[in-house]
Amino acid sequence: MKLLSFEHGGNASWGALDGDRSITDLARCGNSVIPTLREALAQLGVEGIRTRLADQRGAPTIRMEDVRLLPVIPDPAKILCIGLNYEAHRLEAKRAETANPTLFVRFATSQTSHGADIPLPPESVQLDFEGEIAVVIGRGGRRIPERDAWAHIAGYAPYNDASIRDWQYHTTQWTAGKNFDGTGAFGPWMVTRDEIADGARLELVTRLNGTEVQRGNTDQLIFSIPRLVNYISTIMSLEPGDVIVTGTPAGVGVKREPQLFMKDGDRIEVEVSGIARLENRVVKERAAR
Amino acid sequence: MKLLSFEHGGNASWGALDGDRSITDLARCGNSVIPTLREALAQLGVEGIRTRLADQRGAPTIRMEDVRLLPVIPDPAKILCIGLNYEAHRLEAKRAETANPTLFVRFATSQTSHGADIPLPPESVQLDFEGEIAVVIGRGGRRIPERDAWAHIAGYAPYNDASIRDWQYHTTQWTAGKNFDGTGAFGPWMVTRDEIADGARLELVTRLNGTEVQRGNTDQLIFSIPRLVNYISTIMSLEPGDVIVTGTPAGVGVKREPQLFMKDGDRIEVEVSGIARLENRVVKERAAR
Repeated sequence: MKLLSFEHGGNASWGALDGDRSITDLARCGNSVIPTLREALAQLGVEGIRTRLADQRGAPTIRMEDVRLLPVIPDPAKILCIGLNYEAHRLEAKRAETANPTLFVRFATSQTSHGADIPLPPESVQLDFEGEIAVVIGRGGRRIPERDAWAHIAGYAPYNDASIRDWQYHTTQWTAGKNFDGTGAFGPWMVTRDEIADGARLELVTRLNGTEVQRGNTDQLIFSIPRLVNYISTIMSLEPGDVIVTGTPAGVGVKREPQLFMKDGDRIEVEVSGIARLENRVVKERAAR
Repeated sequence: MKLLSFEHGGNASWGALDGDRSITDLARCGNSVIPTLREALAQLGVEGIRTRLADQRGAPTIRMEDVRLLPVIPDPAKILCIGLNYEAHRLEAKRAETANPTLFVRFATSQTSHGADIPLPPESVQLDFEGEIAVVIGRGGRRIPERDAWAHIAGYAPYNDASIRDWQYHTTQWTAGKNFDGTGAFGPWMVTRDEIADGARLELVTRLNGTEVQRGNTDQLIFSIPRLVNYISTIMSLEPGDVIVTGTPAGVGVKREPQLFMKDGDRIEVEVSGIARLENRVVKERAAR
């Protein structure tokens, strides 16, 4: 299944992609109302969502062009981003090796969807791309052993962890540069885990105005997806709808010579093999107030 | 008003402290059901909550001893913690001066309430205290000027940003050490802004087993509360119920010689003048699985 969140007729909803160009709305099904994909993962799990989709077959579908997409999970309780998880990126960033993953955080307000504009805020000229593969948690848990990790994953989606570099380096902690409203693009949909063999090699490409600027694959992850699930869940309870953004490969703009930042009108794409292509345009935000 | 969240008869609710020993439940009022304090701040604001409390006068109150307290806001969309915001603490931590505040993050799963046990997880022997003053956002906004910042604040509460130091220093980013389940104590209640003059000097004391280990006050903040609201809201939209934890004074255990960590059975208190006293006991968590 390809699961996604969207707005239609002013209402937020979620559903499954039906072929290429239409969506089956799954928020209402008979008497059951489940308003968000996050709630659906919590109440039904992926298998329950599949049953709901089967029950809904034959219901009218919505055309893709009639909806406004939302981030795959618009309201995750947690978005955990992994820093320096590709060796070539660690080297370009001149950061020391670590025995454990580097965790930083986005809030839901920092997210945006496929097709939406990514704002270049008036406070910065250093908006950078970071193509990544996001993992959506389906089943929660604490202290999940690596061998059980895959069973906790609902699916995979492209993510652009776009970063405001000058603010990222205001202090030692990266929070500021990773949380400008609407910079983290997540979509257009997630592909559920049953369609991707556990541990399959997912290839990631980032393109700026059609030119490839990053390429990597999950075989290159320093900390594998099961290791990330284990490490994070040792610390905190993972919950359905939580998102782990697994890290960016080499090639980010801030570490190039000369540096390459995104500017008004740029088109940025993150494509993950077998999953989806995420595309956004950069639009300079007018100074507020 | 003193506003708080609690569980009573198995149901989560919220309300106002009535005198010292009883609570007026405000989740249900006539036909209006507002399940959480966060929702109440969003829907009614502090003034609307005051009206609801007036409407509810005479309704049966609940005795404090019959409830289990929850974190003041159990489900904040954002918990923004400020690092190194007292000069004496910055010096003991041997960190450089910065022109902007250091932001790190807690998730809601890391919170606990007044009177609850703080777990010392089997993965660490370095559980440290950090007494702090938390500010709860009442009215959301983006790019809030410093002069308008106070109007966005709903109230103040004690916070213990208890930290797992060895995990905090796994990498450059502090996320891991700040997010172990149930380590961030928040309560017992918040005092609403109308009872505290804007900019009034709030004094903070941390006591371990009755012995004072930290003392500071808001006059000593490197980045004032209005500056924090302005800086954070320049980056991201603040929302009702968001929490800003304003920083810890000098005296943390990890920077002492010899180091002082909390152990099984310790009693830790954070008292903020005119607000409340937060108390928790440390209990060694049994190894899971």
